[in-house]
Amino acid sequence: MGIKMNWEKMLPFWEMLSEQERNSLIENSTIKEYKKNTLMNRNDSGCLGAMVVLTGQMRVYIVSDEGREVTLYRIYGGDICVLSASCLLDAIIFEVMIETTADSKVIMIPSPLLNQIMKTNLHVEVFLYKSAAERFSDVIWTVQQILFTGIDQRIASFLWDEMTRSGQTALHYTHEEIASYIGSAREVVTRFLKYFVQEGVISLSRGQIEILNKEKLKSFL
Amino acid sequence: MGIKMNWEKMLPFWEMLSEQERNSLIENSTIKEYKKNTLMNRNDSGCLGAMVVLTGQMRVYIVSDEGREVTLYRIYGGDICVLSASCLLDAIIFEVMIETTADSKVIMIPSPLLNQIMKTNLHVEVFLYKSAAERFSDVIWTVQQILFTGIDQRIASFLWDEMTRSGQTALHYTHEEIASYIGSAREVVTRFLKYFVQEGVISLSRGQIEILNKEKLKSFL
Repeated sequence: MGIKMNWEKMLPFWEMLSEQERNSLIENSTIKEYKKNTLMNRNDSGCLGAMVVLTGQMRVYIVSDEGREVTLYRIYGGDICVLSASCLLDAIIFEVMIETTADSKVIMIPSPLLNQIMKTNLHVEVFLYKSAAERFSDVIWTVQQILFTGIDQRIASFLWDEMTRSGQTALHYTHEEIASYIGSAREVVTRFLKYFVQEGVISLSRGQIEILNKEKLKSFL
Repeated sequence: MGIKMNWEKMLPFWEMLSEQERNSLIENSTIKEYKKNTLMNRNDSGCLGAMVVLTGQMRVYIVSDEGREVTLYRIYGGDICVLSASCLLDAIIFEVMIETTADSKVIMIPSPLLNQIMKTNLHVEVFLYKSAAERFSDVIWTVQQILFTGIDQRIASFLWDEMTRSGQTALHYTHEEIASYIGSAREVVTRFLKYFVQEGVISLSRGQIEILNKEKLKSFL
């Protein structure tokens, strides 16, 4: 039994593992399927395990006490998510949320198993921290986008992401809420939304923003 | 000869090194001193080496094409800076600037030496990536601060940092520049600066912001 996949290709540390470690991974990993918009790591405190993403898409984000969200990076098929096993990495002391943004299928390598192999095989620890460092690079990129790009682009990104996430062109957000999401002021958001109306990108009605021209919205990203 | 310090205490991987590796580190590392406000990694593309900070303080920051800066985290005496050796870490693909914010004294472990030891000793690679991951945690914290805290706090932090950095209470920034630094709009900055004037924290005159009450400014941080 066990999971059949190209382990050697998916896990860079595969060739550094002993026969026993390989068998343990094959036998004890599980295939999991998640519907779109599932919060994958609710209540697990980063102890779910490492995920080899076969198909689908996820977003990794942080949330403030007031519920504001910022997407740090996205994970696609072929990627490995290690922050879902951050309880094993004592240098990682922050928590992120991981949500599927499409129906997804992953191979889950449970944290206890990974922990056991990590203890005897340093290559696994290197791999996990190295993967985290790659995401560090993604996050720096995101920070640069958020801090160094124009407000128009940030609003457009927000609308685009929400449209994609919900699968709807009619979004229900107040200007205040959008300002809060993108870290700006309400009056600034209002000004730019009016600009988007003039450009024919959106229309505004009470409590609703309707996206009229996706292509044009995309041009602001 | 060689540098005398408590290597075992400063470098967590020390006990994992061979006698030869230890001697090589002791013989080839150098003590460097930097004056306050020195850009440490100009033109080195992350290849300076790892720095064991003996005394002083540094800030690690990113800069946009237009010259806007965001401080990601600060480094103090006793810390080790690995991003100054990021050329050795192929998972780190971003570049940061590192500037002393006080006169500083460091032990520099040159990149070629570190690279050589890394190749034969996996513990060193684990250490470097683990250190990077710790900073990842710091950066996430910073992102949360920037995105999730109020504008008043962001403006106060900016004023406080600039005052500390320059050692002056008279700062020369336009509202536009501050808005740009903190990722907000000019009118929002103007509104809050006026609020700070009313609170007796600062006074405003053409092109100048004078900090009148440091304690009160601090209370907004």
